[in-house]
Amino acid sequence: MHRPYKIVSQLEIDKNGGCFLNPRRVELLQLILERGSILAASKELRMSYQQAWAIIKEINTAAPLPVVSRQRGGTHGGGAVLTNFGMKMLERYAAIQQKYAQMLLDLDDDLQELCV
Amino acid sequence: MHRPYKIVSQLEIDKNGGCFLNPRRVELLQLILERGSILAASKELRMSYQQAWAIIKEINTAAPLPVVSRQRGGTHGGGAVLTNFGMKMLERYAAIQQKYAQMLLDLDDDLQELCV
Repeated sequence: MHRPYKIVSQLEIDKNGGCFLNPRRVELLQLILERGSILAASKELRMSYQQAWAIIKEINTAAPLPVVSRQRGGTHGGGAVLTNFGMKMLERYAAIQQKYAQMLLDLDDDLQELCV
Repeated sequence: MHRPYKIVSQLEIDKNGGCFLNPRRVELLQLILERGSILAASKELRMSYQQAWAIIKEINTAAPLPVVSRQRGGTHGGGAVLTNFGMKMLERYAAIQQKYAQMLLDLDDDLQELCV
């Protein structure tokens, strides 16, 4: 069955009125977890190291505990790791994302009746 | 209780991959219903008549039936009405919007646990 209508939605989570997490930020964190490097993660997302680092600083500041920790080795030289806290937060985001996706699915029948 | 985390979301509905309805478009339709005039509605939303009319043409073309109908009386002179079909569609959008808002509310407890 053709289902022409679709809810367009990105799960953006604000904290105290400012953007905290959105899919792009979460992708960045996920890539840092996988690559162990902010530079490698930023390249993969086609953003500059400066942009990536600015985002991480924002998240680290807004979160109750740091999410990403830079390792020693010079400005771009050292690696970066997700903290335990950061990994926990990613897991919770993924769980919320999954519930959210299910909710959109639950709305789909209503949605297809929008214009009938 | 302070609830710092919030899902930022606009209910945007696409049809076949293009934007069909979003809160601003719905507000435009609602104002046309109330004012009986595209010009009056566009002024209230601080958009030009041309912008408003372009949006309406898009919606009218994408929908199975016209949503707004212009009355006689010159380019900007005549009034405009929502068709019966348009009114029905607005009602359905409102119902979907309401369910969607409730779903976001249902997610809120999980959301506040994002960083604990």
